[in-house]
Amino acid sequence: MKKNIEPCYYGDYLQLDKILGAQHLQSEKYGSPAHEETLFIIVHQVYELWFKQVLHELNSVIDTFSQNQVRDQELITVVHRLHRIIQIQQLMNDQISVMETMTPQQFLSFRDYLVPASGFQSIQFKRLEISLGLKREYRIDFDKQSFYNRLEERDRALLENLEQKPSLFELVDQWLCRMPLLKKDDFDFLDHYEKATSELLEADKQTIENNPTLSDKERYQELKDWQATRENFDALFDEQKYVALRGEGKFRLSHKAMLSALFIKQYAEEPIFNLPFQLITALTEIDEKLTIWRYRHAMMVQRMLGTKIGTGGSSGHHYLKKTTESNRIFLDFFNMATFLLPKDMLPELPPSIKRYLGFYLSDEGK
Amino acid sequence: MKKNIEPCYYGDYLQLDKILGAQHLQSEKYGSPAHEETLFIIVHQVYELWFKQVLHELNSVIDTFSQNQVRDQELITVVHRLHRIIQIQQLMNDQISVMETMTPQQFLSFRDYLVPASGFQSIQFKRLEISLGLKREYRIDFDKQSFYNRLEERDRALLENLEQKPSLFELVDQWLCRMPLLKKDDFDFLDHYEKATSELLEADKQTIENNPTLSDKERYQELKDWQATRENFDALFDEQKYVALRGEGKFRLSHKAMLSALFIKQYAEEPIFNLPFQLITALTEIDEKLTIWRYRHAMMVQRMLGTKIGTGGSSGHHYLKKTTESNRIFLDFFNMATFLLPKDMLPELPPSIKRYLGFYLSDEGK
Amino acid sequence: MKKNIEPCYYGDYLQLDKILGAQHLQSEKYGSPAHEETLFIIVHQVYELWFKQVLHELNSVIDTFSQNQVRDQELITVVHRLHRIIQIQQLMNDQISVMETMTPQQFLSFRDYLVPASGFQSIQFKRLEISLGLKREYRIDFDKQSFYNRLEERDRALLENLEQKPSLFELVDQWLCRMPLLKKDDFDFLDHYEKATSELLEADKQTIENNPTLSDKERYQELKDWQATRENFDALFDEQKYVALRGEGKFRLSHKAMLSALFIKQYAEEPIFNLPFQLITALTEIDEKLTIWRYRHAMMVQRMLGTKIGTGGSSGHHYLKKTTESNRIFLDFFNMATFLLPKDMLPELPPSIKRYLGFYLSDEGK
Amino acid sequence: MKKNIEPCYYGDYLQLDKILGAQHLQSEKYGSPAHEETLFIIVHQVYELWFKQVLHELNSVIDTFSQNQVRDQELITVVHRLHRIIQIQQLMNDQISVMETMTPQQFLSFRDYLVPASGFQSIQFKRLEISLGLKREYRIDFDKQSFYNRLEERDRALLENLEQKPSLFELVDQWLCRMPLLKKDDFDFLDHYEKATSELLEADKQTIENNPTLSDKERYQELKDWQATRENFDALFDEQKYVALRGEGKFRLSHKAMLSALFIKQYAEEPIFNLPFQLITALTEIDEKLTIWRYRHAMMVQRMLGTKIGTGGSSGHHYLKKTTESNRIFLDFFNMATFLLPKDMLPELPPSIKRYLGFYLSDEGK
Repeated sequence: MKKNIEPCYYGDYLQLDKILGAQHLQSEKYGSPAHEETLFIIVHQVYELWFKQVLHELNSVIDTFSQNQVRDQELITVVHRLHRIIQIQQLMNDQISVMETMTPQQFLSFRDYLVPASGFQSIQFKRLEISLGLKREYRIDFDKQSFYNRLEERDRALLENLEQKPSLFELVDQWLCRMPLLKKDDFDFLDHYEKATSELLEADKQTIENNPTLSDKERYQELKDWQATRENFDALFDEQKYVALRGEGKFRLSHKAMLSALFIKQYAEEPIFNLPFQLITALTEIDEKLTIWRYRHAMMVQRMLGTKIGTGGSSGHHYLKKTTESNRIFLDFFNMATFLLPKDMLPELPPSIKRYLGFYLSDEGK
Repeated sequence: MKKNIEPCYYGDYLQLDKILGAQHLQSEKYGSPAHEETLFIIVHQVYELWFKQVLHELNSVIDTFSQNQVRDQELITVVHRLHRIIQIQQLMNDQISVMETMTPQQFLSFRDYLVPASGFQSIQFKRLEISLGLKREYRIDFDKQSFYNRLEERDRALLENLEQKPSLFELVDQWLCRMPLLKKDDFDFLDHYEKATSELLEADKQTIENNPTLSDKERYQELKDWQATRENFDALFDEQKYVALRGEGKFRLSHKAMLSALFIKQYAEEPIFNLPFQLITALTEIDEKLTIWRYRHAMMVQRMLGTKIGTGGSSGHHYLKKTTESNRIFLDFFNMATFLLPKDMLPELPPSIKRYLGFYLSDEGK
Repeated sequence: MKKNIEPCYYGDYLQLDKILGAQHLQSEKYGSPAHEETLFIIVHQVYELWFKQVLHELNSVIDTFSQNQVRDQELITVVHRLHRIIQIQQLMNDQISVMETMTPQQFLSFRDYLVPASGFQSIQFKRLEISLGLKREYRIDFDKQSFYNRLEERDRALLENLEQKPSLFELVDQWLCRMPLLKKDDFDFLDHYEKATSELLEADKQTIENNPTLSDKERYQELKDWQATRENFDALFDEQKYVALRGEGKFRLSHKAMLSALFIKQYAEEPIFNLPFQLITALTEIDEKLTIWRYRHAMMVQRMLGTKIGTGGSSGHHYLKKTTESNRIFLDFFNMATFLLPKDMLPELPPSIKRYLGFYLSDEGK
Repeated sequence: MKKNIEPCYYGDYLQLDKILGAQHLQSEKYGSPAHEETLFIIVHQVYELWFKQVLHELNSVIDTFSQNQVRDQELITVVHRLHRIIQIQQLMNDQISVMETMTPQQFLSFRDYLVPASGFQSIQFKRLEISLGLKREYRIDFDKQSFYNRLEERDRALLENLEQKPSLFELVDQWLCRMPLLKKDDFDFLDHYEKATSELLEADKQTIENNPTLSDKERYQELKDWQATRENFDALFDEQKYVALRGEGKFRLSHKAMLSALFIKQYAEEPIFNLPFQLITALTEIDEKLTIWRYRHAMMVQRMLGTKIGTGGSSGHHYLKKTTESNRIFLDFFNMATFLLPKDMLPELPPSIKRYLGFYLSDEGK
């Protein structure tokens, strides 16, 4: 490792002249400087810095999964970096409280000068969404139209180009599809699994039917919901049905990936599945934290603007709330809990499988 | 102040025999103790302790507002206690992360033993909702039915009785109605306000019409939204219109209370309005934090159960997400931002009013 | 309010070319790019952005207190801005967890390239310390020496200049000294106060003497501590003694300011004292959060470097832990609790004083 | 899995009659109910519930490490449970902000009734400390004496008994000692390591000597610190020296355990070391969070009581601050960073070792 040859000065290293010289108030330009515009600018700049960091981690993870095989050492690094993203997301969520120290009236003292700028023009946030897996086809109508039309040509091109590349969602789906182990020698996970879950669902149905606290209307609704669950469930064991439901938007993961993910979640405590399990859990967490951010952000906009249009000329908070649920990416990892079996209903893994799941060392009496 | 006469011992004072002896696992009773059931019980017990504390503060605030007049000293105490509630809510929201350290599979190892118990049976949480202002009439259909039918007779009676008493929402509405100052001598706030906001709205309309980044469809939608805002706005100055919109659920505050709250928010920096402003802001915060809690809770349930029914026999997370928005209590304080004017468009308060807004001391050259 | 004349674009407004183009890795320059250096840079840049925001608020507060009198309207703004600082501090404290996602070994992969840059060279952080009130005379020896000698000439001059200006601590002290009301007509707060506290202290002494759980050695130590408290206490009523103890560093506030602050804390619920009380509480909170930041930062450095020297050539964490306690600014507001009386031991304020403490409106039957 | 046979009711399951019926105010008993005593009681009860949960996890981890060998599956569970403890600690640290909504004066309205109860009498907290590894020999003098003398006989016996059992610290030390792999075939980690670190330290020395920003006094101090580091360092390769320094309290880990931990931290990305690395990191985090809690708790006590004695008759915050640093348990995991090598100075692991570090599956082209 080389030593540095010229002395490094804190302010130069961090380029603080750029960083701290990039806050020019529009309100000042128009002759009525607003104290709170500084906060507004800095809060957004901090968000953009964090977005840059998150993209840095995310892109490295995407690079790893773009390979044909992912070594365990690499998976460790991937999980580490996803945990870092989660930690940053936590901070970004809490940062909304800082923005909320600005009262609606303080915002009014400069918001007109910002027209038609809009948070929808954050290229990094859009890159983040696309890279995670939120491509045009998954956006709701309004979002589809408005996604690109507020952008400058150069920015639009960059994002359209990015949409052509595989997202983390797609890459993880493919990686899950490459997982072996669902069927081996005389062990057939699916076969056993089908019987066990079927039992479980019947028990649920009886719970509904015998629950004395339910009104008739409620019971009817519950049984309808149960029926939908039953159908999703049947689809697990019938690829054609699955593909059909996926076409209706009931699932996003491919059939094979869904089964692998289920297997991993069922046997999470086997050493070989532990890293994959940590990966799935981290992606779940990222989706959850992003969703909470969207929701809190929508509420903050409502608190700041009421039902007024935003500076970008759209009634922000309605739109934002709508996308909170519709823009979720790893939703399957949440809904997957529907299909889990309690541990004591799981088949014992046969020795031939077990051998695959330990470390070399385990053999030698560690 | 008397001294205590008998020595006090930490464990006796806190009645730790009761507190720490109240964790009996159902899974143990059925012969297969589940490690995570302890977490499940303790997390819920902690929530119930916090609910008790929040109710303690909330009831004292309700008592204060139940008087015919609220002295400034009392308002200071009220704001202090609401801030304490907010601090506790922050903790309760973060506590969901502790629950989420339990995996869905770990939950499955004891969830069947809990049937048909359900979080919907938390009497303290329901008391909290009712005391804040979430009475039966505001609940969505499903919620209306299911609110009472899972409860034991005694609990149902207690809550039905509570519904007859004035809630914090109602009391604050009445207190706002008693506020003077909207019209005094030759000063007519409303008159001035109507002109100024009308101007502002016209400017918004032009922003939409001239925004080149909007598609025709978007513009159409935006103008429709603008029209709705315009109508809400007109209602401010026409009590009959307001009452009609309120009947449709567009507002919950009474006409007079809405105007007082607006006046307070507009002149928040006048000393006499500062405490009322802090009060309104605290109630906004409480509503926001409760809403975030509902949303995070719904996501946690989804993560734990997928689309399966909960132990109470209802498909938890659908229901929970629906109530997140519909059960908001102080929503008017959010939407009110729609009607705010920037400071430089506000009328200068005349001296006769100003005199009301300072402290005695101000006169004497402090 | 003017409308903006040229359209505003998100990325231009926030100057994202500068903000997002200011991350140049030293490790890249030396041919071995280290993945984590990006995190290191961005975390520091975010801190510097927050420091800029905190200074923006702090300087506006200092401006307000630099006037001969502070109007109530202004005090409201001051408290609002201090609360914003606290909210930002909360975020800055939590941000340490993001830095800690970098392992010590990851840090080693680029730390040598940073020599001799050091966090001690953050001019904004030093400005923050000085503006709050941490001038050279209060620094510990090591800190005194090292404070300036790592800086470039221009930076040193800027800070030395700042040390000549009144800090927030000094200005608040002067403002407290200008407070009236300690003695008025036939009311003498101090006289009453002396008697009451004397009683209280004697009771404390008896508690120590009669506590059966204390060993002789403990009792001896406790009585010595009690004696020190007694002496501080006597100094409250004897300006000469106070000045002497202040000379020894036992107090930082002036005698008059200390008494005013005590009076405010005793009667915090009187409307006129509520804003001053909120001010004192906010400054206490700022001191507490800054202290926690120092402590967590010191631990983070220890975790990253162990007992090794930092990039600036100093063994960071020893130094940092030492300054955690010694660099506290508003410590008197903490220790002041020593002198508080419970409410039922406070003298009833006479009507002539009471009249000063309400709002005009109170008279008119609000 | 059996179904439950009798219906389960929320309030009965959680024993809410006990939990919510355990708040009896002392101030009420003495005829002057204090509003804030409820908060005081509930905050402490919540802490005790969390302590119970932490002990539940901690004891299960201790059981695992009490075995002669720890299987990988078990290590996964251990790490999972330690992460849960960390999440709870986060909440416990933030909970101090809730307590701080009580003003010192509010505390005074009931504190005298609590004499001589004291937080030092929390048996669960003491069990936590002892089980983690804070046995009497490591406590500072004052702490040693006062640890037991405020307790009732039964409680004292329980803790003294617990001190006889192996703590988590001791068990992890033994587990680290059992780790193989430091020397194998022709690979000698220590030998390589000694050379590399020696180089690194010399470079540090030169950094100090050539740093133009250091004053003579500073340079002298830095070189003295460097010398101490050098000695600690030499001790790594000389067991006798190490034992001597450990006798002086410079290390707590045994020599063998220290080397194993170092090896793990150096090669954290090798799959077989990843779980042990996660374990060490989790213990570091637990120590850090506990330390922050102690520090924040000490500051809160100071803010509440100043320099007054606490209800237990001891001047709380001095004592508490002293123990913050002295009661650290896994400090070696922090200081260990001193001895780490950057990745590019590490020896390439030979294939014979490598074979131990992968999963079976890796061989088969996953």
